[in-house]
Amino acid sequence: MLQYQALDQAFMALSDPTRRAMVERLSLGPASVSDLAGPLPMSMSAVAQHLKVLEASGLVVSEKVGRVRTCRVEPQALSAAEHWLNERRRTAEQRLDRLGALLAEPEDKETP
Amino acid sequence: MLQYQALDQAFMALSDPTRRAMVERLSLGPASVSDLAGPLPMSMSAVAQHLKVLEASGLVVSEKVGRVRTCRVEPQALSAAEHWLNERRRTAEQRLDRLGALLAEPEDKETP
Repeated sequence: MLQYQALDQAFMALSDPTRRAMVERLSLGPASVSDLAGPLPMSMSAVAQHLKVLEASGLVVSEKVGRVRTCRVEPQALSAAEHWLNERRRTAEQRLDRLGALLAEPEDKETP
Repeated sequence: MLQYQALDQAFMALSDPTRRAMVERLSLGPASVSDLAGPLPMSMSAVAQHLKVLEASGLVVSEKVGRVRTCRVEPQALSAAEHWLNERRRTAEQRLDRLGALLAEPEDKETP
């Protein structure tokens, strides 16, 4: 998967509050699909659909042992999306800081 | 806008490579809609549609002075999405670190 496609899918997966709740739960530790579905006000098949989107994005991986599918979050995939946001925010803030410093300079310094 | 709705819209806005390219450009400084459209292989009206999504999410704000609409990125909105990811990633990593430390402990320590 190309890097920009991975970001497309990660951000898309995170744009839904149910899927964010699932990632939040899995950040505390692996869980079965039933565990994930427990607190959610929806059918097991709706949860399975959300899980598919999370797995396609790489944010969550799951493994079936016997009859139980166990899911876990993939910190590196969270990190890739976080890194993209961090870079843009820092660039924007640094620019604003430089602008602020420039505006704070005494006027006689502007035309040396 | 409730916090979870703001996150829905921010992550949704960022799930498109064109909109990420627009945010990337705006992190370098404000730009007119024409400036934003310049490097993008699409019509001005398609760019305007993407801009609408970015503005609805709060990631971008724009202001029209005379005939020129100038857009800028909102670092705080980037920060909210970044913060959500950062919290989940750190929780997941800390859990893995504790698990690693536990597995590295000598066996005789486990049953004192």
